[in-house]
Amino acid sequence: MSFSYSNQVEQWDVFEIAVTGRCDGNPFTDYSVWGEFSSKNETCRTQGFYDGDGIYRVRFMPSFPEEYTFIITGSCFTAPLTGSFSVSPAHGKNHGPVRICGDFHFAYADGTPYYPVGTTCYAWTHQPYELQTKTLETLSHGYFNKIRFCVFPKHYDFNFADPITFPYEGTPCSVAGICHDNFMEFKPDNPENRWDFKRFCPQHFQNIEQRIQDLMALGIEADIIVMHPYDRWGFSEMSAEEDDLYIRYLISRFAAYRNVWWSLANEYDLMKKKTTADWERIASIFCQYDPYRRLRSIHNCFGFYDYSAPWITHCCIQRQDVYKCAELTDEYRARYRKPVILDEICYEGNLPHGWGNISGQELVRRFWEASLRGGYCSHGETYLSEDGVIWWSHGGKLHGESQDRIRFLRSLLEETPGNGLKPIKRNWDDVCAAAENGAFYYLLYFGRSRPSYREYDFGPKPYTVELIDTWNMTITALGTFCGKAKIPMPGREYMALRVREKDSLSH
Amino acid sequence: MSFSYSNQVEQWDVFEIAVTGRCDGNPFTDYSVWGEFSSKNETCRTQGFYDGDGIYRVRFMPSFPEEYTFIITGSCFTAPLTGSFSVSPAHGKNHGPVRICGDFHFAYADGTPYYPVGTTCYAWTHQPYELQTKTLETLSHGYFNKIRFCVFPKHYDFNFADPITFPYEGTPCSVAGICHDNFMEFKPDNPENRWDFKRFCPQHFQNIEQRIQDLMALGIEADIIVMHPYDRWGFSEMSAEEDDLYIRYLISRFAAYRNVWWSLANEYDLMKKKTTADWERIASIFCQYDPYRRLRSIHNCFGFYDYSAPWITHCCIQRQDVYKCAELTDEYRARYRKPVILDEICYEGNLPHGWGNISGQELVRRFWEASLRGGYCSHGETYLSEDGVIWWSHGGKLHGESQDRIRFLRSLLEETPGNGLKPIKRNWDDVCAAAENGAFYYLLYFGRSRPSYREYDFGPKPYTVELIDTWNMTITALGTFCGKAKIPMPGREYMALRVREKDSLSH
Repeated sequence: MSFSYSNQVEQWDVFEIAVTGRCDGNPFTDYSVWGEFSSKNETCRTQGFYDGDGIYRVRFMPSFPEEYTFIITGSCFTAPLTGSFSVSPAHGKNHGPVRICGDFHFAYADGTPYYPVGTTCYAWTHQPYELQTKTLETLSHGYFNKIRFCVFPKHYDFNFADPITFPYEGTPCSVAGICHDNFMEFKPDNPENRWDFKRFCPQHFQNIEQRIQDLMALGIEADIIVMHPYDRWGFSEMSAEEDDLYIRYLISRFAAYRNVWWSLANEYDLMKKKTTADWERIASIFCQYDPYRRLRSIHNCFGFYDYSAPWITHCCIQRQDVYKCAELTDEYRARYRKPVILDEICYEGNLPHGWGNISGQELVRRFWEASLRGGYCSHGETYLSEDGVIWWSHGGKLHGESQDRIRFLRSLLEETPGNGLKPIKRNWDDVCAAAENGAFYYLLYFGRSRPSYREYDFGPKPYTVELIDTWNMTITALGTFCGKAKIPMPGREYMALRVREKDSLSH
Repeated sequence: MSFSYSNQVEQWDVFEIAVTGRCDGNPFTDYSVWGEFSSKNETCRTQGFYDGDGIYRVRFMPSFPEEYTFIITGSCFTAPLTGSFSVSPAHGKNHGPVRICGDFHFAYADGTPYYPVGTTCYAWTHQPYELQTKTLETLSHGYFNKIRFCVFPKHYDFNFADPITFPYEGTPCSVAGICHDNFMEFKPDNPENRWDFKRFCPQHFQNIEQRIQDLMALGIEADIIVMHPYDRWGFSEMSAEEDDLYIRYLISRFAAYRNVWWSLANEYDLMKKKTTADWERIASIFCQYDPYRRLRSIHNCFGFYDYSAPWITHCCIQRQDVYKCAELTDEYRARYRKPVILDEICYEGNLPHGWGNISGQELVRRFWEASLRGGYCSHGETYLSEDGVIWWSHGGKLHGESQDRIRFLRSLLEETPGNGLKPIKRNWDDVCAAAENGAFYYLLYFGRSRPSYREYDFGPKPYTVELIDTWNMTITALGTFCGKAKIPMPGREYMALRVREKDSLSH
């Protein structure tokens, strides 16, 4: 038996102990390993996991820059292991995990506001390594600070190749004969599948956690989709016992990474063999075993999950109406009193499907609508390409026009005094947001309206007004106004105004 | 006493008898004149009106190409006048008045389908004659086959000049000091107004009926707005007795013109001094005294009037939601079981107001949405211009981009087998219409969706498919398809497909 660890780790990074131990029988189920971590300010008990090759790992994210001790116990070895390590303060881009801030927003643990501006690459970690590297290169441009992706491989239109690794030991059904026309015939209960749902394939998870770390280095939250219905292998129809084993394996491997979020499912309501009781049971496992209480939600196809469920930290919404989605953000806020993230509102692209073929302009318009109504949006891109690589599923390169504008929007959101915007009803024909913290800071958005000017009554004090061209990404000072004033505007779509107290600009 | 008339008139044209008579006292109230017209197929009693200069007129629209006799009686002269005239069959563009056809559509009296594609020039008949002529020149290009306009002059943003004539004898309040900022201070009860609401000014009505005739010559229906709230003169707040005198004067003057429709009000709900009982009383006057039962409706600002009221022939709707309007057309059809005309869904333009500043693309998109959901739309244009002339109020020239596309849409609608389209729910991500008469004739619209192709299962028979670029106004044959087929599309916005049985094209 041997064990190893580093005796130095940064606050909110992962402290890991690797232990060799018995691995006869089924090491994923026959043995267990636990760690208990203590410092002046916290005590945390976490489960470890078997990582193949006779090695067990126990991971822990320390929240305080102080001295820690640990005890590792397990049935895979005899004596408990003890040791200590010191935690240095976070530095650089490490702001800690993202938490809910107030009712409707997010902040890192160090208090820095976090404005989620996500994207979607469902199966990017299942693609050839070269493509994964290209995806990371694209992500390094800072368009997004969250990404949604699946643990289980994906079987769906434009995405029929086997993944580079599978989550379980065994062999998949043949991919022969799969094409767009007959893919619905490939069912999860395909008898060709041969899996041992009690034996994980560590390589599959090792790759995902490498990607979680890569994302962390880029300052991107990993919104992990735990389950989904796009399946020809049977991973969506395992028994409750197998599901629970999987969930606990996920928690023990991934939860210590500060950028992990749990999305219990994508389109949960398409997984016809799962009931609400199943989802609540799965949620309870996260609540019980994830010591960090990572952000939790679940994504719908048709009807929303009940986002008022106490385990749900924020709404993760797929739009229900073809025409109105981001425009309902303020209603969702009022209904659920939780942060609202619209995680699927149609992707920029040109697919045959209505969920993946709007323009960059229209996607960016939806982002602005949602943002000024006090919520958040996710991006996705679905342009058909010669090589069959589509960002929404595979990652790779972006071909669209929205990502630069989304980055621009985020840079503006980050200038909000305090944390977050709240919707204000002033005029029926603009969308108005104010700083949640009560500062005199207003954003007004006009979307498809194209006013040549707008008239506002600013009252006695002077206010500075800027014109924001949300598509061309320019900010133009229009001057200082007070009383009834006419604000000149260009008579084009996708304009916004920012109004601030004159004195507030000096800081 | 003398009288004059032509003894020859065309079916559905206006037969008019001019009679000189007593006009001492108040000829608008002290005397009355009636006509009774008889032929083999009809008998009709209509009221005449005083037209100034000692002349009374009685008008009548004959519906049958046959011999008619008439008797004119009145308190303004002693003996009844009698005579006869012959009616020749309609010819050329004269298809008769427009009627409701089936539950949801319109047809001319001769059976020709009528697809209303209207525009809005509220105050065009109140402008200098040169501008009225320019408006008619614009209308002569055939963009529209209906126009909405007011009898009473209009006091509203961008429209503060006095009209060329007033409907009553008297003098208006001064226009001094009216500007955009203070126009709300000019109330209908302004004490400067000096009117005799019992004495009409015939010139005002003579000009309007000249315009009705000009429109008729262009094949354009005159959707006459009887009342409206944009008023500094008091015409919107007359007594019930004065209102009723006005309504009967309108009927006796205008009803005989076959292209007249009655819109009881624009934004009826902004006329705070009128109750539902008032509107129902006014409606009952139209029902009682308009022998032709011209089409009748009423237009809202906020809440709809109850369009199920029996006197209402069709819905005349201003949208209630900033984002969804045309998209609700099928719901309105189902709710009211009447033809749906969306008479205000935001105008193409660049006004500061959210009701008048969308792009031509967006307006045309709304037209297509409404059309394929089995309803109809009206156009309006609100571009600010140096000379202060804005189509929506004054008429003049069009500066926008939608009118050509609207004409193109109408030409397509007129190719529908039978009369009218009905919405069909097939896919969630396209808008599908079929011919109301059951012919295999489908239109599919994609709006802001930009599919690169679509897949449909045509079944065993061959169908021809055309790509319609609704913005660039092109129709491209894509070929003949049967079974499961992939229809190539350009991946751009605003596309439609037309699908017909192959054999149906031979005709």
